[in-house]
Amino acid sequence: MRFIATSSSDGVTEQHFTLDEIPGILWTPDGLSGTQPLVLLGHGGGQHKAAPGVVARARRYAAEGFSVVAIDAPHHGDRPRDEEFNRILAGLRAGMAAGDDPGRLVAGMHGHLAARAVAAWRAVLTAVRDLDAVGTGPVGYCGLSMGCGLGIPLLAAEPRIRAAVLGLLGAQGLAAEAARVTVPVQFLVQWDDRMVPRDQSLALFDALASTEKTLHANPGGHGDVPAFEVDDEVRFFARHLR
Amino acid sequence: MRFIATSSSDGVTEQHFTLDEIPGILWTPDGLSGTQPLVLLGHGGGQHKAAPGVVARARRYAAEGFSVVAIDAPHHGDRPRDEEFNRILAGLRAGMAAGDDPGRLVAGMHGHLAARAVAAWRAVLTAVRDLDAVGTGPVGYCGLSMGCGLGIPLLAAEPRIRAAVLGLLGAQGLAAEAARVTVPVQFLVQWDDRMVPRDQSLALFDALASTEKTLHANPGGHGDVPAFEVDDEVRFFARHLR
Repeated sequence: MRFIATSSSDGVTEQHFTLDEIPGILWTPDGLSGTQPLVLLGHGGGQHKAAPGVVARARRYAAEGFSVVAIDAPHHGDRPRDEEFNRILAGLRAGMAAGDDPGRLVAGMHGHLAARAVAAWRAVLTAVRDLDAVGTGPVGYCGLSMGCGLGIPLLAAEPRIRAAVLGLLGAQGLAAEAARVTVPVQFLVQWDDRMVPRDQSLALFDALASTEKTLHANPGGHGDVPAFEVDDEVRFFARHLR
Repeated sequence: MRFIATSSSDGVTEQHFTLDEIPGILWTPDGLSGTQPLVLLGHGGGQHKAAPGVVARARRYAAEGFSVVAIDAPHHGDRPRDEEFNRILAGLRAGMAAGDDPGRLVAGMHGHLAARAVAAWRAVLTAVRDLDAVGTGPVGYCGLSMGCGLGIPLLAAEPRIRAAVLGLLGAQGLAAEAARVTVPVQFLVQWDDRMVPRDQSLALFDALASTEKTLHANPGGHGDVPAFEVDDEVRFFARHLR
């Protein structure tokens, strides 16, 4: 793990790093003694580790005493894109324009990325828990939309993650792995999401094997999650990771 | 308004009262200066103002600095039952046993009670706001199941209520009045509720005209609302009434 740049403001230290070609950012709260819970933050499709929404959520969590790590998903941010990914992306855009089922298109994209995304997260998780500033406290995962599509395979594979915020995605391509998710989940649905049909969202919520899972649905489109939901996420993680 | 008994414990004063034959309980937080927000607490079918769940929720809200009032719904608790109500109740029980649509049966019961329930709440609201211990601060309403079925007509009629927690009920008989509810709503659904079909719950959430409304769904039956939802209610009311 190689640290590239470190800065500190508002009581939060932000460190850019790379681990085996995976670029990431680690946020840690200043001035707390002892090990704090850690949240892995997965970004949405087309976004990256330093997208404004990712940074805002990370800094909010860190202000509440969580350590937070975000990495670029495969073929996103500072990671290289290969020809096959570009073909899949072009196919997805053409399919969307042609009115094809967006759930099927998006599931195909996520399926292409999932194995590498899961391996990257597992390696980063091991590496950051080796840091004195993080330690081996409880771990949560927060990922919406593509962050959910890559997060569910991660949760199915990774026993160190004890709670997750997921959502803004349907069940296509994910039902089998969702059935292996047993940790508490808070699941976000946007009630008027034109990217994700409501019945597909509810089907993914249903598919999760977790005995404790709560669905939060709000009016509006894919990008219209109300700010108060981030407050609810902080409390959800506080309840399960502290 | 006539006060019958007063007690105080754990920083909360509890006063039993009657207002024009309506029996109620008022909980006020001790030792706070200035006017606090007020929450009206509507009980479920077959329950009453002092049912354990009502008292627990009221004391929790009061511990967070809210004044709370609960009253017996018509034909519940210490209020008289008439022959017509007994006929309706017997019909409901027989219909349930015969496998009739519970949504239709329950809607008929609530329809029989709604006009008197709304008039009682409006009179109690006026009376308690005249008390120095309560005052004319912001007002919320919390009612699930029958408390929702009587609460939606109340919200449609009563402009002094600015936020509401509702749920555990379907849309039958309520769609028109729900379309007149415009205040922020937190709406509870039990995902495996055998009393209330899921599609009827979602239809009632959809029917609310509120631009800010959040659905919280949890696994389990009608009575299995998780305890953390009461924490969420407190924060919802704090956000809208403070």
